[in-house]
Amino acid sequence: MATQGQVINCKAAVAWEATKPLSIEDVQVAPPQAGEVRIKILFTALCHTDAYTWSGKDPEGLFPCILGHEAAGIVESVGEGVTEVQPGDHVIPCYQAECRECKFCKSGKTNLCGKVRAATGVGIMMNDRKSRFSINGKPIYHFMGTSTFSQYTVVHDVSVAKIDPLAPLEKVCLLGCGVPTGLGAVWNAAKVETGSIVAVFGLGTVGLAVAEGAKTAGASRIIGVDIDSKKFDTAKNFGVTEFVNPKDHEKPIQQVIIDLTDGGVDYSFECIGNVSVMRAALECCHKGWGTSVIVGVAASGQEISTRPFQLVTGRVWKGTAFGGFKSRSQVPWLVDKYMKKVHTPFPHKILM
Amino acid sequence: MATQGQVINCKAAVAWEATKPLSIEDVQVAPPQAGEVRIKILFTALCHTDAYTWSGKDPEGLFPCILGHEAAGIVESVGEGVTEVQPGDHVIPCYQAECRECKFCKSGKTNLCGKVRAATGVGIMMNDRKSRFSINGKPIYHFMGTSTFSQYTVVHDVSVAKIDPLAPLEKVCLLGCGVPTGLGAVWNAAKVETGSIVAVFGLGTVGLAVAEGAKTAGASRIIGVDIDSKKFDTAKNFGVTEFVNPKDHEKPIQQVIIDLTDGGVDYSFECIGNVSVMRAALECCHKGWGTSVIVGVAASGQEISTRPFQLVTGRVWKGTAFGGFKSRSQVPWLVDKYMKKVHTPFPHKILM
Ligand SMILES: NC(=O)c1ccc[n+]([C@@H]2O[C@H](COP(=O)([O-])OP(=O)(O)OC[C@H]3O[C@@H](n4cnc5c(N)ncnc54)[C@H](O)[C@@H]3O)[C@@H](O)[C@H]2O)c1
Ligand SMILES: NC(=O)c1ccc[n+]([C@@H]2O[C@H](COP(=O)([O-])OP(=O)(O)OC[C@H]3O[C@@H](n4cnc5c(N)ncnc54)[C@H](O)[C@@H]3O)[C@@H](O)[C@H]2O)c1
Ligand SMILES: [Zn+2]
Ligand SMILES: [Zn+2]
Ligand SMILES: [Zn+2]
Ligand SMILES: [Zn+2]
Repeated sequence: MATQGQVINCKAAVAWEATKPLSIEDVQVAPPQAGEVRIKILFTALCHTDAYTWSGKDPEGLFPCILGHEAAGIVESVGEGVTEVQPGDHVIPCYQAECRECKFCKSGKTNLCGKVRAATGVGIMMNDRKSRFSINGKPIYHFMGTSTFSQYTVVHDVSVAKIDPLAPLEKVCLLGCGVPTGLGAVWNAAKVETGSIVAVFGLGTVGLAVAEGAKTAGASRIIGVDIDSKKFDTAKNFGVTEFVNPKDHEKPIQQVIIDLTDGGVDYSFECIGNVSVMRAALECCHKGWGTSVIVGVAASGQEISTRPFQLVTGRVWKGTAFGGFKSRSQVPWLVDKYMKKVHTPFPHKILM
Repeated sequence: MATQGQVINCKAAVAWEATKPLSIEDVQVAPPQAGEVRIKILFTALCHTDAYTWSGKDPEGLFPCILGHEAAGIVESVGEGVTEVQPGDHVIPCYQAECRECKFCKSGKTNLCGKVRAATGVGIMMNDRKSRFSINGKPIYHFMGTSTFSQYTVVHDVSVAKIDPLAPLEKVCLLGCGVPTGLGAVWNAAKVETGSIVAVFGLGTVGLAVAEGAKTAGASRIIGVDIDSKKFDTAKNFGVTEFVNPKDHEKPIQQVIIDLTDGGVDYSFECIGNVSVMRAALECCHKGWGTSVIVGVAASGQEISTRPFQLVTGRVWKGTAFGGFKSRSQVPWLVDKYMKKVHTPFPHKILM
């Protein structure tokens, strides 16, 4: 391609500082270095986490930066040593890398690759510990190793999932964050079985994907909890069978759900980021076996708490990042499921 | 037997009130009613939980009562409808019942039977909601459904494990609480695999049984943590390979252990009952997969807390009661293992 090896001038939405509206700027995007991939971003979505960092509440937030981490595009060029993708490949950039070499990747127990974290956590690329973005020579930080609010971005090769070129990018871009997070919370973290009773706290993208995941896993009841009753109609399409608005009840929400379910739910999911809801989600679980999965990201410094007796009597408290999916290996698999519209036990409605 | 159907006069250690020394009294033990078993207790041990209730800190503690829940004896007589044991059977009374009929027992997911809990929780027997113990007509409460600090006790039939009559009762009485709790925390709750790195907080009976369980499960390193360095010598015999006394370190104990293990342990166990140690036990687990099991029982009203990020990045927080063992089914199995001195993957040293 004509642009290969060249600096690309393009448009990007730059966050100059926290809470200040993003502004569309002309940005210079340097060519990919060793182990890097430059991607033409065609579609990007907005996730709660972009807004969180933008709000200034993320202690790791660095400005100026280019936000965005839920997107799809086409490889424009690759740096030295990159073998798994080439120009023209359709890809989803993944904030969760997968190097297949580090202690985490080799453990077989987690998707939390550690390879590029030290660079992506501070807004730079690993090779020279610098940014590939600049405006008239002034560097602009990367964000989550993806920075998809730009027409072109540069990411580490371990963060690129190569997908079916026939997949509609405007739809599968959602497989870059929220949807896999919710589905994986159900399938990988909780491992919900047929007949289970499930509670989902928060019916945003993540909560709806949890509901869809629970439905395909065969849950018998899916109780949706949200303070915004407008969410309930949409949620029905994703499998939610009952709704509870905490504002309609005097009793603590955990008690409301215990009463509704003769002792509590088998699985609960917190998809909001509120530490007191995280506690309620644990405590509405059934004694003896109920498992609660934290998906929401709380503001920094906040803590969860409960009486230890909740755990001694058999409840399990866990969490998940990116739904436990290994990004490079499993995002393409999720795209395939979508393309095949496989109905069970995989999601069939989320992206339609 | 001559005593069958009669009130038995015998000696018992009575706790008249919290913190007051137990006193040996002549007690009248009524005959077992329907679904009850009267047992001649031959050996009983003392567990931390007896001392906890005696201390007055247990909000469910009722006085006067007869404490004790780690014992072995011989059935003296049985009430109407009792079919699974008969006079002369060697038994271990179990504070955790197993009815095989309730929602909990039938779930296949927990050992927390609910059948007699409403009675044992308030110191009485289910049939007539009264106590079988009295002194000159004044009722004395039962404790944990066992009350083994008495020469004779009456328990619900769902709380009696019938064991090999050849087993030495002075040894297997320990299979009534602490030892199964520790072994089961490792085998049933954590499911420790070969090669795992394990940390045990607190090296009392429960912590030593955890170490033994981890050793038989093939753990590669077993780090014992105690503020009493005198425990370390004994602990070696139970498989502990390294010792850490928090008093020897300035750094928080979770950091000390993370540094010792290149990122944290695979499994940790809190066997003390201290909520800040429970937090440390969780936080010394490895990112991505570390699992912490709470075994200790904290003082009432106390709470555990941590940053939710600990769970979102893959740590799991759980707990266990009686090690997850189903009492009537599995205590006899533990006795058999002891009798056969099976070396792997079962405990082989604990009771020798
Ligand atoms: N763990 C991960 O890998 C991961 C990935 C993506 C997103 N997240 C996090 O998941 C959370 C949800 O993301 P989203 O994009 O779906 O958010 P969202 O804002 O679209 O949805 C949140 C929902 O929660 C509801 N809500 C707010 N407070 C509530 C309360 N007290 N009780 C009940 N409902 C309440 C809101 O009305 C809304 O419907 C966020 O915290 C986000 O940062 C985590
Ligand atoms: N979950 C269950 O089913 C179950 C069953 C039995 C016992 N328990 C509980 O398990 C706990 C342990 O019982 P045990 O009989 O082994 O007790 P124990 O008193 O014999 O042992 C506790 C050990 O912890 C050590 N310790 C105290 N504070 C410490 C600290 N801050 N840091 C490190 N070590 C410390 C002590 O020196 C001691 O060696 C108790 O809380 C008991 O109630 C729970
Ligand atoms: Zn996101
Ligand atoms: Zn890796
Ligand atoms: Zn005990
Ligand atoms: Zn039962």
